[in-house]
Amino acid sequence: MFIRNAWYVAAWADEVSDTPLARRILNEPVVLFRDRAGKAAALLDMCCHRGAPLSIGKVTDLGIECGYHGLTFDGSGACVRIPGQDRIPERARVRRFPLMEQDGFLWIWMGETDRADPSAIVRYPWHNDTAHWPHKHTMYHIQAAAMLMVDNLMDLTHLGYVHGSTIGGNPMTHVEARMDTVRTPNGLKFDRWMLNSLPPPTYVRACGFEGRIDRLQRFEFIAPGSILQLSAADEAGTYADGLPETSKLQFRLYHGLTPETETSCFYFWSTANGFRPNDPAATEQLFNEIAGAFKEDLTVVEVQQARIAECGQDALVDIVTDAARLHMRRTVDRLLADDRPALAAE
Amino acid sequence: MFIRNAWYVAAWADEVSDTPLARRILNEPVVLFRDRAGKAAALLDMCCHRGAPLSIGKVTDLGIECGYHGLTFDGSGACVRIPGQDRIPERARVRRFPLMEQDGFLWIWMGETDRADPSAIVRYPWHNDTAHWPHKHTMYHIQAAAMLMVDNLMDLTHLGYVHGSTIGGNPMTHVEARMDTVRTPNGLKFDRWMLNSLPPPTYVRACGFEGRIDRLQRFEFIAPGSILQLSAADEAGTYADGLPETSKLQFRLYHGLTPETETSCFYFWSTANGFRPNDPAATEQLFNEIAGAFKEDLTVVEVQQARIAECGQDALVDIVTDAARLHMRRTVDRLLADDRPALAAE
Amino acid sequence: MFIRNAWYVAAWADEVSDTPLARRILNEPVVLFRDRAGKAAALLDMCCHRGAPLSIGKVTDLGIECGYHGLTFDGSGACVRIPGQDRIPERARVRRFPLMEQDGFLWIWMGETDRADPSAIVRYPWHNDTAHWPHKHTMYHIQAAAMLMVDNLMDLTHLGYVHGSTIGGNPMTHVEARMDTVRTPNGLKFDRWMLNSLPPPTYVRACGFEGRIDRLQRFEFIAPGSILQLSAADEAGTYADGLPETSKLQFRLYHGLTPETETSCFYFWSTANGFRPNDPAATEQLFNEIAGAFKEDLTVVEVQQARIAECGQDALVDIVTDAARLHMRRTVDRLLADDRPALAAE
Repeated sequence: MFIRNAWYVAAWADEVSDTPLARRILNEPVVLFRDRAGKAAALLDMCCHRGAPLSIGKVTDLGIECGYHGLTFDGSGACVRIPGQDRIPERARVRRFPLMEQDGFLWIWMGETDRADPSAIVRYPWHNDTAHWPHKHTMYHIQAAAMLMVDNLMDLTHLGYVHGSTIGGNPMTHVEARMDTVRTPNGLKFDRWMLNSLPPPTYVRACGFEGRIDRLQRFEFIAPGSILQLSAADEAGTYADGLPETSKLQFRLYHGLTPETETSCFYFWSTANGFRPNDPAATEQLFNEIAGAFKEDLTVVEVQQARIAECGQDALVDIVTDAARLHMRRTVDRLLADDRPALAAE
Repeated sequence: MFIRNAWYVAAWADEVSDTPLARRILNEPVVLFRDRAGKAAALLDMCCHRGAPLSIGKVTDLGIECGYHGLTFDGSGACVRIPGQDRIPERARVRRFPLMEQDGFLWIWMGETDRADPSAIVRYPWHNDTAHWPHKHTMYHIQAAAMLMVDNLMDLTHLGYVHGSTIGGNPMTHVEARMDTVRTPNGLKFDRWMLNSLPPPTYVRACGFEGRIDRLQRFEFIAPGSILQLSAADEAGTYADGLPETSKLQFRLYHGLTPETETSCFYFWSTANGFRPNDPAATEQLFNEIAGAFKEDLTVVEVQQARIAECGQDALVDIVTDAARLHMRRTVDRLLADDRPALAAE
Repeated sequence: MFIRNAWYVAAWADEVSDTPLARRILNEPVVLFRDRAGKAAALLDMCCHRGAPLSIGKVTDLGIECGYHGLTFDGSGACVRIPGQDRIPERARVRRFPLMEQDGFLWIWMGETDRADPSAIVRYPWHNDTAHWPHKHTMYHIQAAAMLMVDNLMDLTHLGYVHGSTIGGNPMTHVEARMDTVRTPNGLKFDRWMLNSLPPPTYVRACGFEGRIDRLQRFEFIAPGSILQLSAADEAGTYADGLPETSKLQFRLYHGLTPETETSCFYFWSTANGFRPNDPAATEQLFNEIAGAFKEDLTVVEVQQARIAECGQDALVDIVTDAARLHMRRTVDRLLADDRPALAAE
């Protein structure tokens, strides 16, 4: 069960070119490609003639040409050429999915086409602000449900257990963090304050902290799959009156979770360096530290997925630190319930 | 669903020796072997004692001996030896499948034994005529239904898209080919005339054509899985009155498709050199060119199979060039319908 | 279907340390570990918080700590620590399985906890008698039902066919062996006498036999999965009045079969050298010979399993040499029937 009437990250904009890219999204086979004018499109990855995946074809002046018998489709899914016949039957078309390019992402809409409203797409302007927030990005393909990765990001107490040697540090720092949570119409925001705490290894490597620090993680979850994160840290005592304009260490993370199947997902993430924006080595180092940490998450959620798939979740026990995660889950469940009738009426 | 009361190629005759060969045919596990006298036999690949595959055993003077406890079966499937006891129970036998050796093939009958008529086996005399049609052969194991490969061979417009650099050449040559089709009781024949056309790369490499050529592909499909092909080409203008006795380039292909499972098959094929029969290098080169081209088909039909298995074929759209393919499919569907009652009565 | 109310070998005692070990037993995911005091425990390998496998965690002073959010469980399965909260809810616990360490084994009970009686565990004192019976042991992970391996050990006529070059030798020696069988409450014992027979290669390599030998294999099967074996051999004529106190060649094998799933198992086995106990090279050589032979069994039962899973066993035919195997199967079926009502009442 997926929320279908929503925008998901289908790909990084720079992943898609005139070489077709096959990607399964919400359990549908999709082909992504750019036409000669550079406009990206998303179609069902199955030729309407004999069912071959369009992704084994190629982009021509007319659109995407099937690699089996040469039928060609434009970005709207309409067949524009059938070798050997002039008339193109009305039925000769493949399903297209609304696709929007914005802030370095390609956003896809897998639900009812006429409900696809581009203004509802999550904005992430920092990807465009390369002067102040130079960034790097990548995608991890994870054998676990997207929701397990969202869970992961809503309960940061895992940092001390999963990421002790990188972004986590001392477990109790995270367990004792003060949480300020605010609910939003389609998600929630929370600040995690870790004042006068020991810096984790990644922070020391980035900024050379020698003593205790004040540390903030500011999260916003926007259903169904975006998490916007700001992390900041400075010498202990600096945050007594809240977050100042700038901090010695500050970086942003975008996390986008897109279901591939019920038990696998794509994890699109970026790191933006806001503390030494003119230092490409710092941008690179930040990305590499996070890349290693997120591999640790991947390992955990994949085995968690396997166990849950086998044994179910009914007997699991919620604990105090699950508060943000539970609110996120209730939000998603509500949106899912809202999404169903629309689908049934399709 | 397979047509069971029919002969299929089980193996090339030279694949089967006194070392047992396991091969799944029409989704039944079969063991093929030759007895001491060289006669080939096909049995269900499962000992009637403890169920071990007979293919892990060995051929003895008495027949095929199970590799677990030594029970031995002759080519009729009768148990002829049980170590440790003299009396052999009536029930101690394994199913045998009629098997005939002819024209370099081993043909198997997976249906009702008493309906197996050897005179119904497709003949292919060119395999025996090594003076005029020296040949080479092999088998490809394909992860796609046999019918998808038959489809492939009934719509040759794919040559320009899948095989542009080998046997195909210019796509429009194939799209515009004139088709002369004749229906037969259990299949169809068609001639594809490509007069005054550009030679594909394989033809140039074989015969050094410098200008345009007249080209013919003569196909016969015989249900359930044989396709006999003659390809010929000569200087443009030569075929104005039809195919002459001989051509500068002429070769034959046998294509045999045998289902392994519903979604995989064996593709037995041979190439026979009729244009320079005394030149082994030409025989070799022809085989190698075709081998490369057929690997291209394999790639396409395997991804087509995966997509069709997931999404079904109901929404697919037939086009003009599907005419031969559709007639083939109707023939197969009719034979399948005829085959069912017999099975139900078994 | 497994007999659940019974003791099974979960692991060799030396396999389990303070590094958690994941092992699926009777199709349940189990984690095995030793606490700081060295006491071994077995828990369901799934944290009760978010379902992560406990086996990715680590042992601490308190017990086993989940690698995701740090919940900690003692050997009884009780949660003893939840980071971030003082009160531990009653429900926060994971299932524990009774586990006993004895004779070099860890024995697990997967049934109703209150029926777990340690006095019912099979004893194997020779593992403790390193002076007279120095031994080596290992475990094979087999893709076949445990019962197919028990079958294998109840019909030794396979030795001549599967193990001709190692422990088997001449097939007819085994087929013609005299069987003395005695039924027991939960299994059976049998002696296989092969008097005046040719020694198999392994025996020649171990003791240098030059002529015919008297040979005995003494087996005891104890349901659900233990087989105790004594093998002995000496010059022909030595066993005319039964087995003497000692023989030129004598060794013991323990075989323990524990189901992993319905179609896979763990094969725990040891070899104990009773003929040259002071010669470590003899102990080593014996183990290596047997290790090779048992790999041959593994190959056979795995393909047997695949065939039986597909085609069923209903049409199989029992033969004379199946007598011990059939009695074993009847014993197991009876225990299985006795085991079911208890489970239904759980």
